[in-house]
Amino acid sequence: MIRGCFITVEGTEGVGKTTNLDFIQQSLLSQGVEVVRTREPGGTPLAEDIRALLLTPRDEPVAELTELLLMFAARAQHLQQVILPALQAGQWVLCDRFTDATYAYQGGGRGMDTRQIAVLEQLAQAELRPDLTLLLDLPVETGLERARARSTPDRFEAEKVSFFTAVREHYLARAAAEPERFAVIDAAPELEQVQIQITQALARLGVQYGS
Amino acid sequence: MIRGCFITVEGTEGVGKTTNLDFIQQSLLSQGVEVVRTREPGGTPLAEDIRALLLTPRDEPVAELTELLLMFAARAQHLQQVILPALQAGQWVLCDRFTDATYAYQGGGRGMDTRQIAVLEQLAQAELRPDLTLLLDLPVETGLERARARSTPDRFEAEKVSFFTAVREHYLARAAAEPERFAVIDAAPELEQVQIQITQALARLGVQYGS
Repeated sequence: MIRGCFITVEGTEGVGKTTNLDFIQQSLLSQGVEVVRTREPGGTPLAEDIRALLLTPRDEPVAELTELLLMFAARAQHLQQVILPALQAGQWVLCDRFTDATYAYQGGGRGMDTRQIAVLEQLAQAELRPDLTLLLDLPVETGLERARARSTPDRFEAEKVSFFTAVREHYLARAAAEPERFAVIDAAPELEQVQIQITQALARLGVQYGS
Repeated sequence: MIRGCFITVEGTEGVGKTTNLDFIQQSLLSQGVEVVRTREPGGTPLAEDIRALLLTPRDEPVAELTELLLMFAARAQHLQQVILPALQAGQWVLCDRFTDATYAYQGGGRGMDTRQIAVLEQLAQAELRPDLTLLLDLPVETGLERARARSTPDRFEAEKVSFFTAVREHYLARAAAEPERFAVIDAAPELEQVQIQITQALARLGVQYGS
């Protein structure tokens, strides 16, 4: 089946996802590729309502399985309403976080059994996986300083450093296990240096830059 | 493990669940059994927020899998926060709908693969099943007339008669497959006759009435 490319961008808090998503979108556009840009959890009105349930701090403790099922409820909606129709129409999709984030946050951060995540991944996605996943990587403390200077922390951002350390390690382990799909981008240097790495990674998809 | 009894009440729209839940609660109380009365989807503030997402009519089509995952997200929260702590403390739990409703509505009504439901049931409940399930049964048209005279239909109540016919048939098939757990209550006759049947069903739990 011919379909559009599915690109995801991952990373912990404060790694510069938004800035670099803008850069990726503009880079692709300059090569004549218009992307459907979206995000998880969210991307449809219902999925954004689920996002609000997930991110809003509340007094009631949220069961780990509840959080996981809400993530996949939002994902199932996003896939049916946005991602799959776009890919099937030959459009490219650029998504701010996807299932790798669930493995990293719920599996790595919360310590949930990743087999539970795999069961839900199979239910929601069948064989669909991103074609390219850019993992923006940064030491946890640096990222948290940036993120916390920016806004009031949501339910995830309020977690401890040890949580984000586990998330980062889980992301890096996934990237090491699937090097053909992942590109690990060192997000520590100056933006220009980060974006050179991103451009090199996008070249894997057959998009030519600066040539 | 000694634990409290877990009683669920099921049925399609307008079968008289609320009236008969009141009766069951009062009957048990008269025998010295105080129940934790609750409902699904819902039963905690977060699960009630998920309920609102499920029931509110919206323009966006809701993916079947999204609906199913939201149901189990609410259930996982309800189990962890309310049902399991009560049962483990030896309390009885009386719940307005539970997983049989998911099989009947999403499996029967929507025609979803019940193996998907079984996967989620296993994730959320492991071996937990109700000790007694009272299925209030009524011809679909009679129930819908009663329900629609009462209030504006929610996203489920707005479904067609054929949907509820499939729900009812699925409920009855489940009851036939597990007669030791289910009691099918004919909800068509006068309330007094319905409640005689309910009293007989509760006697299975070792609660004595009128003796």
